[in-house]
Amino acid sequence: MALGVNRQVRLGVRPQGIPQAEHFEIVEAPVPEIREGQILVRNAFLSVDPGMRGWVNAADNYSQPVGIGEVMRSLAVGTVVASRHQDYAEGDQVMGWLGWQNYAVSDGGTITRKLKDTGLPVSLALGVLGLNGLTAYFGLLEAGQPRPGSTVVVSTAAGAVGSAVGQIAKIAGCRTIGIAGGGTKAALCREVFGYDAAIDYKNCTRLGDALAASCPRGIDIYFDNTAGPISDAVLAQLAVGARVVVCGTASVANWDPLPTGPRVERHLLVKRARMQGFLVLDFEHRYEEGIAQLATWVREGRLQYREDIRDGIEACPHAIGSLYRGENVGKLLIQL
Amino acid sequence: MALGVNRQVRLGVRPQGIPQAEHFEIVEAPVPEIREGQILVRNAFLSVDPGMRGWVNAADNYSQPVGIGEVMRSLAVGTVVASRHQDYAEGDQVMGWLGWQNYAVSDGGTITRKLKDTGLPVSLALGVLGLNGLTAYFGLLEAGQPRPGSTVVVSTAAGAVGSAVGQIAKIAGCRTIGIAGGGTKAALCREVFGYDAAIDYKNCTRLGDALAASCPRGIDIYFDNTAGPISDAVLAQLAVGARVVVCGTASVANWDPLPTGPRVERHLLVKRARMQGFLVLDFEHRYEEGIAQLATWVREGRLQYREDIRDGIEACPHAIGSLYRGENVGKLLIQL
Repeated sequence: MALGVNRQVRLGVRPQGIPQAEHFEIVEAPVPEIREGQILVRNAFLSVDPGMRGWVNAADNYSQPVGIGEVMRSLAVGTVVASRHQDYAEGDQVMGWLGWQNYAVSDGGTITRKLKDTGLPVSLALGVLGLNGLTAYFGLLEAGQPRPGSTVVVSTAAGAVGSAVGQIAKIAGCRTIGIAGGGTKAALCREVFGYDAAIDYKNCTRLGDALAASCPRGIDIYFDNTAGPISDAVLAQLAVGARVVVCGTASVANWDPLPTGPRVERHLLVKRARMQGFLVLDFEHRYEEGIAQLATWVREGRLQYREDIRDGIEACPHAIGSLYRGENVGKLLIQL
Repeated sequence: MALGVNRQVRLGVRPQGIPQAEHFEIVEAPVPEIREGQILVRNAFLSVDPGMRGWVNAADNYSQPVGIGEVMRSLAVGTVVASRHQDYAEGDQVMGWLGWQNYAVSDGGTITRKLKDTGLPVSLALGVLGLNGLTAYFGLLEAGQPRPGSTVVVSTAAGAVGSAVGQIAKIAGCRTIGIAGGGTKAALCREVFGYDAAIDYKNCTRLGDALAASCPRGIDIYFDNTAGPISDAVLAQLAVGARVVVCGTASVANWDPLPTGPRVERHLLVKRARMQGFLVLDFEHRYEEGIAQLATWVREGRLQYREDIRDGIEACPHAIGSLYRGENVGKLLIQL
């Protein structure tokens, strides 16, 4: 089995804040041999996600931080190229926590699922048919509880999660207002993702005024991917009974020490509003339901997506910084 | 009908922040004549509530602010002394928005209910069997959703709302930790209101350390009557899936402009916690259920209360400031 080398992106230095290229190193390692009960996966697409910032920081988080010298944690899709595990056969397509590397060994514990043939590209398992789409689906429908006619505001509205939130909200009969950075993304919101209005926060004098003009009866649901000043402007315009889904904090570079901002208690109290942290992993038992529904909507043309696919493992170290600078248009992936 | 004069406490100047004695004036007016469809009520007890700060400030709130020269808005209980309204007879005991005055005219619209004879003092209708008790009951049970074994932290734990929250949480099988200002109130929490632990925030070096010692598995429910630095310390120690009931903001003197504090998004996200504004008026359709249950608990001795009853209408102008300085022990009332 002449597989060549296994190039790996390892964490070299623990970053403060957003991980940049200099925090990683690319190392060549031999392609590992598998033992009984293991499989070898050749990765095809590696995922780049905002959550990666948390995975490499030492602060309190959902999961154990990636250790110095370890392969960067990442979801990936790939093909089983060798199997000594009864549940997997050569040629199976799988998704899992396979890391930023060409080849990964697994005993099945890091495989999240075998990919069924949906007739759609396998890369979608890392985006609109993966955690991004599932985050939008469960975050909006369960935590946000949209009703027909609700006014829904989404931050990072053209992103992998946000674009799906906006479209699912439209399917649920809501009015949708997207907040995105730059004219290209705002246009994408309006023209591709079907938002009723899009606000380019980088080119508006006062975000509050733009929101008031788009949401004259207040905001019923805010799907928050950013935190920070964008959220401060949105929270000031909640409607009575509003739901805020706190899904990501992309605009805050560092949480240690805690940054300060306008207090939220009075908004929540006066508007009897609810602000709720959402983590898709809490809905793991319902992923199949979500993926089936999302795939149906994609096939029907009701759920559009964009992918920003970069080439080769050399693209990895810069990718998280690029994501936080908002340089990608659509789901950011590395193709190997 | 020689009723004498009607002494009224009117708003003289609109305060910034907490209303003090100098913002009110006491005026003597004639006792009004009633017309067909009206009743005249002689007030027996006037309520003093933290919400009054909001009612006289011009900032965004639940209700129209009290106008300059108008009688201060207040709940009160009293006796119908004259009636030309088919639903009320002389001698009926009523509760309603009767204002800080000796006599109030009503067409029934400002009467919230006739008091049934519970065998308990009528003043309780303004406290543990009124909005304070109902706030505790619905706020804890509906927004807080306690479960046996939950760790519940309450701020202003010895207050009219907080003391009921702590005791209802115990009835629901929770562990309760009260935060109160001063040794007397902390002792009251432990000895009368049955808290498992009480923290005197005015006499502890670091509130966070005291909370960590009392809540080693984190905080499942925080019933927040204060906002501000006390809440900042509590929010840093939430357990996964925690619920924060934002019920009052007693520690924040002024919301215009919005004060700043540590951002909450990361706490909510990492702990998948929920922070929710609660207003008891949203549960008006269930008040009778709540009062019946609260009265049963009071009669059974499972729900203790304290009243701080001050004498005469001259005590009104100082009362809100006194409440915010934490000088009262128990529900603050004015007896006429």
